[in-house]
Amino acid sequence: MITTDILIIGAGPTGLFAVFEAGLLKMKCHIIDALPQSGGQLTELYPKKPIFDIPGYPSVNAGELIDNLMEQIKQFQPGFTLGETAVSLNKIDEEWFEVITNKGTIHRAKAVAIAGGLGTFEPRKPPLENLEMYEENGVEYFVKEPENFRDKDIVIAGGGDSALDWSIFLSNIAKSVTLIHRRNEFRGALDSVEKVQELKDAGKIKLITPAEVIGLKGDGKIEAITIKTDDETYDLETEYFIPLFGLTPKLGDIANWGLEIQKNAIVVNNALDYQTNREGIYAIGDVNTYPGKMKLILCGFHEATLMCQSVYQRLNPGKKFVLKYTTVSGVDGFDGTRKEAEKAVVKKID
Amino acid sequence: MITTDILIIGAGPTGLFAVFEAGLLKMKCHIIDALPQSGGQLTELYPKKPIFDIPGYPSVNAGELIDNLMEQIKQFQPGFTLGETAVSLNKIDEEWFEVITNKGTIHRAKAVAIAGGLGTFEPRKPPLENLEMYEENGVEYFVKEPENFRDKDIVIAGGGDSALDWSIFLSNIAKSVTLIHRRNEFRGALDSVEKVQELKDAGKIKLITPAEVIGLKGDGKIEAITIKTDDETYDLETEYFIPLFGLTPKLGDIANWGLEIQKNAIVVNNALDYQTNREGIYAIGDVNTYPGKMKLILCGFHEATLMCQSVYQRLNPGKKFVLKYTTVSGVDGFDGTRKEAEKAVVKKID
Repeated sequence: MITTDILIIGAGPTGLFAVFEAGLLKMKCHIIDALPQSGGQLTELYPKKPIFDIPGYPSVNAGELIDNLMEQIKQFQPGFTLGETAVSLNKIDEEWFEVITNKGTIHRAKAVAIAGGLGTFEPRKPPLENLEMYEENGVEYFVKEPENFRDKDIVIAGGGDSALDWSIFLSNIAKSVTLIHRRNEFRGALDSVEKVQELKDAGKIKLITPAEVIGLKGDGKIEAITIKTDDETYDLETEYFIPLFGLTPKLGDIANWGLEIQKNAIVVNNALDYQTNREGIYAIGDVNTYPGKMKLILCGFHEATLMCQSVYQRLNPGKKFVLKYTTVSGVDGFDGTRKEAEKAVVKKID
Repeated sequence: MITTDILIIGAGPTGLFAVFEAGLLKMKCHIIDALPQSGGQLTELYPKKPIFDIPGYPSVNAGELIDNLMEQIKQFQPGFTLGETAVSLNKIDEEWFEVITNKGTIHRAKAVAIAGGLGTFEPRKPPLENLEMYEENGVEYFVKEPENFRDKDIVIAGGGDSALDWSIFLSNIAKSVTLIHRRNEFRGALDSVEKVQELKDAGKIKLITPAEVIGLKGDGKIEAITIKTDDETYDLETEYFIPLFGLTPKLGDIANWGLEIQKNAIVVNNALDYQTNREGIYAIGDVNTYPGKMKLILCGFHEATLMCQSVYQRLNPGKKFVLKYTTVSGVDGFDGTRKEAEKAVVKKID
């Protein structure tokens, strides 16, 4: 069982930054995310794309912003439960909330901050019979641990950036990489398309286009897939099948937690602390709604900050509110490190 | 007369970032600030000190943050009235507000955003008879244009970072630099104290400590100052006297604009758009107050963003609200430049 002060659901920029603001107030955080890595949409959907409206960054790549946030919060040693979805949320006594994931991991926290963005990113699945039977038995929708594919035969399906980029990446690790797409044209960064062309020409990626995977075969685990082209239908032996047809965000189980929902967003009572209709449960970032709401990363940062203050007051009733300026007070990490501005000296000149 | 869409009072980080958000909505901004350069406290008080709580920056020097914000808003060509204080604010007709500065510069705008931070930074002045007579006639509280001091005899008074840093800087420009302080000890960055010691040893800065300036002399302009040490009182010829005894923030004339004020801050009606009790006049950043207010730069960024949306709706009644993501839409500058993410290509692999 994992216990923490603030349990954050969603490891996007808003959830990550909440760890920092909580840390300044000496509160510990743990983060759950359905994706196998932190960063939310930024890492999963557009890591190499620039964002122009992060204050103080004329331009920053989404992946770089996440790296910077991870570096910024490192000192506060957040815990992570990645690749799991929060399924239930219950208040178990005066003090504790309990959140259990789809894999049964139990988390207890004194406050819960839902920073779920547009929802859980769920893979678009191909309409194949027996698909679910092979999930985690050769069918994967994410490349969580590339090492699992070392010296294996793998088939990737899809025509976008994910399919292109993972084909490139895994061509160095797997025994063989076959990329299947229903068209001859791929849609993605020019670099990636050209690199796949190059690897194909070098015989490091096998391309089958236009083609579709129409069947899965194997005893308990994937052993072959059935491929249909314009001319023929045939089986191809493989150990892994990775369909990368994009992700769709779903609010999912969060919708069943007794929170007020409006147009797929969680209503927060006001802009004071971004608390939901359930005391001690907050919603910050793209997942919430309130009058004037703008779904911008910079707004999520502000919301995370006010949420942390509110939790602090909840957990420390009667304590006087003290705003600390990091330039003046420095930042004391939970790992014993300290960041601080160089102090002024008082020194004689003679 | 200067006309613009949004007149921003205060060139600190919040005021600067408002230019960007306004620009995304095709609104032009002009900024007034009492200080001779943009950046507010960050540039004036602690340009070399790190800030640790700007989201996405594990650490950023205050001066660097301002440089980055200036770079970020460059595309939207903001106008600046620097070194002047906004004195009066009046609504002159249905459409226009008029703001006049202490130097008589007239600004007209369709909305006013007060981003005044802790107030106008006013120099602490030494208690000298006839001081005001010599202001701008040899007595300067800021080094606005270093070139004005080329080949001049100047006297700087003070014992902190400003006095140290300007003595160092001007020692390369002025004919002579004399630094006077009432103690032998200086308080500042170690680097700066050591550099002044070095320049003093090399004869490039003359040091008179402990000593005080007790009088000013000259016919219409400064010609000499009277110095008192433990042992003697004497006159020293000089062309400029620059007392650098720190700055104190004063809300100043803003207090007379009919806005609701609470503990030196402007009350904004709610967190919806940070509008004051006077329609079309907003207060953003450290200068405002509302339930849950935190005086943090990152909160100012959020407030600036929602303020711009509100102004846009005011100026474009009935227009549908459209949130643009810069990664998707790019950023079109008023200078004809465009920033955009690299587009995906659709390309055949064969």
